[in-house]
Amino acid sequence: VSKRIGIIGAGTAGLQLGLYLRQHKIEATIFTDRTPEDYTSARLPNTVAHHAVTIQRERALGIDHWNTEDHGYFGHHYYLGGPDPLRFYGDYHAPSRAVDYRIYHPQLMNDFTAQGGVIDYRPISEADIDTLSAQFDLLVVCTGKGGFGKLFARDAAHSPHEKPQRQLCVGVFKGIDQLPTRAVVWGASPTQGELIEIPYLTFGGMATALVFENHIGGDLEVLTHTKYGDDPAAFRKLMLDKLATHYPMTYERTDPREFDVANSPLDILQGAVTPTVRETSVALDNGTIALALGDLHATVDPVLGQGGNMASHAAWVLGEEIVAQDVFDHRFVEVVDARRRDRVLAATRWTNFMLGALDTLPAEFQGFIGALAQDRKLADEFTDNFNFPEKQWDVFAHPARIGAWLTRDRSQNDLVGAAAG
Amino acid sequence: VSKRIGIIGAGTAGLQLGLYLRQHKIEATIFTDRTPEDYTSARLPNTVAHHAVTIQRERALGIDHWNTEDHGYFGHHYYLGGPDPLRFYGDYHAPSRAVDYRIYHPQLMNDFTAQGGVIDYRPISEADIDTLSAQFDLLVVCTGKGGFGKLFARDAAHSPHEKPQRQLCVGVFKGIDQLPTRAVVWGASPTQGELIEIPYLTFGGMATALVFENHIGGDLEVLTHTKYGDDPAAFRKLMLDKLATHYPMTYERTDPREFDVANSPLDILQGAVTPTVRETSVALDNGTIALALGDLHATVDPVLGQGGNMASHAAWVLGEEIVAQDVFDHRFVEVVDARRRDRVLAATRWTNFMLGALDTLPAEFQGFIGALAQDRKLADEFTDNFNFPEKQWDVFAHPARIGAWLTRDRSQNDLVGAAAG
Repeated sequence: VSKRIGIIGAGTAGLQLGLYLRQHKIEATIFTDRTPEDYTSARLPNTVAHHAVTIQRERALGIDHWNTEDHGYFGHHYYLGGPDPLRFYGDYHAPSRAVDYRIYHPQLMNDFTAQGGVIDYRPISEADIDTLSAQFDLLVVCTGKGGFGKLFARDAAHSPHEKPQRQLCVGVFKGIDQLPTRAVVWGASPTQGELIEIPYLTFGGMATALVFENHIGGDLEVLTHTKYGDDPAAFRKLMLDKLATHYPMTYERTDPREFDVANSPLDILQGAVTPTVRETSVALDNGTIALALGDLHATVDPVLGQGGNMASHAAWVLGEEIVAQDVFDHRFVEVVDARRRDRVLAATRWTNFMLGALDTLPAEFQGFIGALAQDRKLADEFTDNFNFPEKQWDVFAHPARIGAWLTRDRSQNDLVGAAAG
Repeated sequence: VSKRIGIIGAGTAGLQLGLYLRQHKIEATIFTDRTPEDYTSARLPNTVAHHAVTIQRERALGIDHWNTEDHGYFGHHYYLGGPDPLRFYGDYHAPSRAVDYRIYHPQLMNDFTAQGGVIDYRPISEADIDTLSAQFDLLVVCTGKGGFGKLFARDAAHSPHEKPQRQLCVGVFKGIDQLPTRAVVWGASPTQGELIEIPYLTFGGMATALVFENHIGGDLEVLTHTKYGDDPAAFRKLMLDKLATHYPMTYERTDPREFDVANSPLDILQGAVTPTVRETSVALDNGTIALALGDLHATVDPVLGQGGNMASHAAWVLGEEIVAQDVFDHRFVEVVDARRRDRVLAATRWTNFMLGALDTLPAEFQGFIGALAQDRKLADEFTDNFNFPEKQWDVFAHPARIGAWLTRDRSQNDLVGAAAG
């Protein structure tokens, strides 16, 4: 049996898949137009956290290059603003880690070629797909660039939104004190926005990523539309003002004189994401299957940090099935989809649910947050379940589920947790 | 949380589900119009084999009442007729067993009530569903009687046939010598029919079930339309003639003077099955979910003996999820379906594939049978995979898969087998 795998796109999904395949001696070629060197002068692509389940896969792939003791973080501080603010903390079962993808991706590219993987550096677009299909037994598409989105139809049943739900302003900053024990600080300014503060490894060492999730038409949206380069001092002042007003839990550790981009103006990324799920595969003219992976399959808003983890999960499942199966046909896709579907869809659905609930604050959601603030065990479970979005969807899929989850018998929890890995 | 489960239908699916729930102290009520006593004078409902995976579940449920050493069978003899007949044998990893459902179902009903389950003896029809939905948190429908098929729409994508693919004549007989080691004898008379001969525990002890799968319009179809009661001697002579012509592998062990129904004329069942998959659930007016289970969810032709096993698998999965989850909503159904879907659909698809392939004998299918006849290891694997229909579908889903399966590296097989249970 012939297993020549073509991977279009050198993001987390494509690179982890390529590394998995090389570990199993399978021929893999990655197509990208960016060399490892290009990343040094590139704009921040995003600020993606890898949770423990992803780090476990990275360990298995031999790419766990950044020890979590020095670079990871250990839980979430939650801050819900308003007249009577709530603050509480929840622990992970094992640390998460956020490494600047301008470090992470070139490192994995070098790892991949060191393992005998081939990287073909050239621009590839949707028009090249038929040519490529003759050279490979399976094509995996994991980039939105090059018009590949057109190949995979939008899955309307799982794409409730036609436009972005937040205006984003994302950056890597210095001048914010780390907490004594590193943690994400996850804040909400009700009806205005959310801020996710992430301990972040960038070029110069540990810094702080700030992900401003600004409600459209609100007081914070200006952060998305103000350009740092136009007037750096004014930008810094604006951001500090907004932190002081909306996110005191971060502002209280910020030194206004030191506060600035960590490396350069390229550390700022502004824009918005339309949450979209696409069809998982398409049969090309010669019968070869093209399979969507990672962001191209499902794009989520970054508010819950699910994108990288679901891409990594899906890449691993796909790698296992490429190893296990001999023929890459519709049945192959069906088996892959059955194994990745629930986690990918749950990440999407849970993220979309939270975007809505954080905007409209329904009573049962307020009750949920209030209960977590009162009960550390619940806060720990919710926090650790960022690893397992399907468990979060089990909590939020129906209003009745929230109350059932809050009051359920947890005496068996240690056993369940041990089996969940 | 309230978990009152109503189960409509007292077949294998409903009874095994009820027993699972009682084992976990969950309230379960089964509705049926037949008492255990009614079964003594009932017509043979079918002749269902339970494979090792099902017997394992029966053991866990405490209903493994018939030891396999005395009542089970250990593999399949295959016979493919034609000018140059093929005969070969394949082993199971553990025995299968076929118990007359006129013994099995009343026994399980008694087991269920002994475990605190409630059986409500009355006719129930689709018109009662709204009344019932007020009394239960979840309704499980596992009978085709009472018009419940109307509640669950036909799943056209997985129901390729509008009418039966075989005319069936099924019966329990005496006068056929058991093989020295009990086994199913699975014979095909190319383009005319298949005969499955099953060691079968009925009222008087071990006898032989014969399942005649007669191609429509062929020489054997007359078996489906000739009534035993009209002239028993003529019926016996007709069946013996057909056995002699089409199924010598069974005829050679038949004593014409002894050959007859094992118990009474009620041992004969004639008819036909339209393979049908239905939607898995429906939300009733008050929000309660009605979920289809067993034959009502997926009806298969009996040619591969998959019906009882997929019903038992689905019942077990459903039981586990009723125990694990607190709210019986669409998410509940989604999780149940994700866990039962591949096995149920694979049983259906594989059965439909075999019905077609046994009729048209495509070259790659003939090659497959020829290869099994030459290689005992392959015959064993194929035979044991009657336990795992999804593995059979992995072989037959695409013509290229057959060749890949025949030639694949099996050096890891023992490991894989150990993990597959």
